[in-house]
Amino acid sequence: MATAEIITVGDELLIGQVINTNQAFIAQRLNECGIVVSAMATVGDRLPEMIATFRAALERRDVVIVTGGLGPTHDDVTRSAVCETFGVTLTFDQPSLENIERLFAGRGQPLIRVNRDQAMVPEGCTVVPNLLGTAPGYLFERNGCVMAVMPGVPYEMQAMMRETVVPFLMRRFPGQVVRHRTIKTTGIAESLLAKQLGAIDEIIPPAERVTLAFLPSPAGVRLRLTSVAPDAATAESSIAAAEARIRAKASAYIYGVDEEDLEEVLGRLLKERGWTLAVAESCTGGLITDRLTNVPGSSAYVDRSYVTYSNAAKVRDLGVPAELIDRYGAVSEEVAIAMAVGARANAGTTFGLSTTGIAGPGGATEAKPVGLVYVGYADADGALAVRFTFGEGRRRVKERTAQATLELLRRKILKV
Amino acid sequence: MATAEIITVGDELLIGQVINTNQAFIAQRLNECGIVVSAMATVGDRLPEMIATFRAALERRDVVIVTGGLGPTHDDVTRSAVCETFGVTLTFDQPSLENIERLFAGRGQPLIRVNRDQAMVPEGCTVVPNLLGTAPGYLFERNGCVMAVMPGVPYEMQAMMRETVVPFLMRRFPGQVVRHRTIKTTGIAESLLAKQLGAIDEIIPPAERVTLAFLPSPAGVRLRLTSVAPDAATAESSIAAAEARIRAKASAYIYGVDEEDLEEVLGRLLKERGWTLAVAESCTGGLITDRLTNVPGSSAYVDRSYVTYSNAAKVRDLGVPAELIDRYGAVSEEVAIAMAVGARANAGTTFGLSTTGIAGPGGATEAKPVGLVYVGYADADGALAVRFTFGEGRRRVKERTAQATLELLRRKILKV
Repeated sequence: MATAEIITVGDELLIGQVINTNQAFIAQRLNECGIVVSAMATVGDRLPEMIATFRAALERRDVVIVTGGLGPTHDDVTRSAVCETFGVTLTFDQPSLENIERLFAGRGQPLIRVNRDQAMVPEGCTVVPNLLGTAPGYLFERNGCVMAVMPGVPYEMQAMMRETVVPFLMRRFPGQVVRHRTIKTTGIAESLLAKQLGAIDEIIPPAERVTLAFLPSPAGVRLRLTSVAPDAATAESSIAAAEARIRAKASAYIYGVDEEDLEEVLGRLLKERGWTLAVAESCTGGLITDRLTNVPGSSAYVDRSYVTYSNAAKVRDLGVPAELIDRYGAVSEEVAIAMAVGARANAGTTFGLSTTGIAGPGGATEAKPVGLVYVGYADADGALAVRFTFGEGRRRVKERTAQATLELLRRKILKV
Repeated sequence: MATAEIITVGDELLIGQVINTNQAFIAQRLNECGIVVSAMATVGDRLPEMIATFRAALERRDVVIVTGGLGPTHDDVTRSAVCETFGVTLTFDQPSLENIERLFAGRGQPLIRVNRDQAMVPEGCTVVPNLLGTAPGYLFERNGCVMAVMPGVPYEMQAMMRETVVPFLMRRFPGQVVRHRTIKTTGIAESLLAKQLGAIDEIIPPAERVTLAFLPSPAGVRLRLTSVAPDAATAESSIAAAEARIRAKASAYIYGVDEEDLEEVLGRLLKERGWTLAVAESCTGGLITDRLTNVPGSSAYVDRSYVTYSNAAKVRDLGVPAELIDRYGAVSEEVAIAMAVGARANAGTTFGLSTTGIAGPGGATEAKPVGLVYVGYADADGALAVRFTFGEGRRRVKERTAQATLELLRRKILKV
């Protein structure tokens, strides 16, 4: 398979002022062409380092993609580095000048000299048109290696990749394709999930050219499958086979795939059935309902929520008996159940959910440590609460509680 | 000045699945130590490339920071690469095992072998404790060069940088210092803020070695001041002088500095005065209360909130007259005011806040487009609502509404 290196240029990256989103965008596009990204490098706006980095990449890789440092000001020196790397000088490109004139006319601004100079491009390159900005890109082919140079402005670079660079690479490197699938789990730790899956060789037989990676996060562990094959059908069937083997071993923990979040999965399940939901949040402070309402159309099934932070709110708005709080404490199985039941009764919804816990850092007692959480659930048949211990970190406790609450509802709906 | 290279490890970066935020975070912290980041590299989870990249960086730089690939599963090989790079084997570290045991006990999960193995660390390193995760970090000093290796999970790495690596580097490389200060504004567009500030030369006289950058976001425009000086006192006084000049020109729009969020500023203001708050959220769906309750100790002033997504909830739980909704619609000045008044009355708090709007993509009419929002406010003296038009993008409308609601309360409290 063809290999690639992505080189991003700019001091703003080296001081951490800007998060590098171009790398991930370019990597995804190359991947879709069946080109494997072997490495990424970031260098500042300095000629010697740029030239050394370009040359090293051209020696090792089939494809080199460079972004950044093509602007009109003194600190942009990528064009000079490209010229020195290939031992060429600048030449005038009429279509680039016309594009620059068109852009300035559209903005009603006078064309100044530094922008006119951007129509000078390295000799021997194929110009990559930039309809959204003044800096054209360059495409070189030397000794079987392709190098594309584009500006660092994300939307300019993205359009240039889509319209020119990707189509060129697809023609130039036909053959292998790469497919990914991310299987999203929750409610099980990375190490326990690995144990549950058993020997990796059985899930992905070495002959199949599929790899498996574990990606943990507070929302759960994601399992990423990657398949490399000569055509899309083979790549997709290898992924599907591996996914089926994973599902056979850990289906209960899997709530979705790829970009799908748990709130989207739940939204689909509720909408299909015409079911509705009310939530009583204490320790999650509104996070669950914020997530649920991020989904377009969620007003069809999210009726209302209560963030009952004070005990008085639990009593007045949810009808939790004050004696229950006095006897068991607000963070208890009994109160979690009463909250879920109360929210459901007020709203007349299919389901009621609740959270009560100690997010910390304050509020803990000897019997009730930071991270202790009860999640309540109520439906027409009754109610229950589940106890969790989520450890420290206020935001993390909120996130893990929200995920566990949504997952509890998913399992109840699907009876898994 | 000392130079550094940041190496991030992980196939998820090379396929573009994850945007690399660790690089920017680490670059900022090194900058604050007066260490210049010369280059960044990203490599996959493969031993030979990792070792070659580590060795090349150790030859060229004073400081090498590595993150990623320290997890407990088969695809994590950074520890082996570190051992091979320095020609050492693994050794058992008792404090690391105790930390792993503590984490598993906190989660109520059994400790399994792969996690116990994470207490094996490269011989001759100083262990960098990881209180938030099971993988310890390593710090090496060889031939005048420092190498720090940490996991790639952002919040674990960030805590390890803050608590161990940065203090170590500050002692190890004294000299030039860089200071940053970010002044956070909201409620004013970037171009209008620039106009309000006037000539940049007057805010930061060229002699002072201070730079100013405008960083826009949905929460508002941040102004970042950077000062380079031979000592901390000089750097800090230059920054303070520039900040004073900015405040003189735009004080009403400035709600905080650096990492301080609007919810923290509000929390301080409310706590100092012993005042309390209830919120009635419709289009923000719980986001405002989620933000308020991210602040430790917020239970002192956040009494309760209502996420009244359905009209029935607005009527039953907030006492909004059904006729008002019929006559003006749920997204109206009248309903916003009634929601804020109702929440405040139920809770008996100092303030009531409310939001009602069209987050989209559905729900718009000719008279009420996506992005139309009313924010309500109530106190003992009365109530009002403010109309906003926030454009498209469901999450963006929620975020801009939440920020505007919190800012309205800040200005009411401070009477600015």
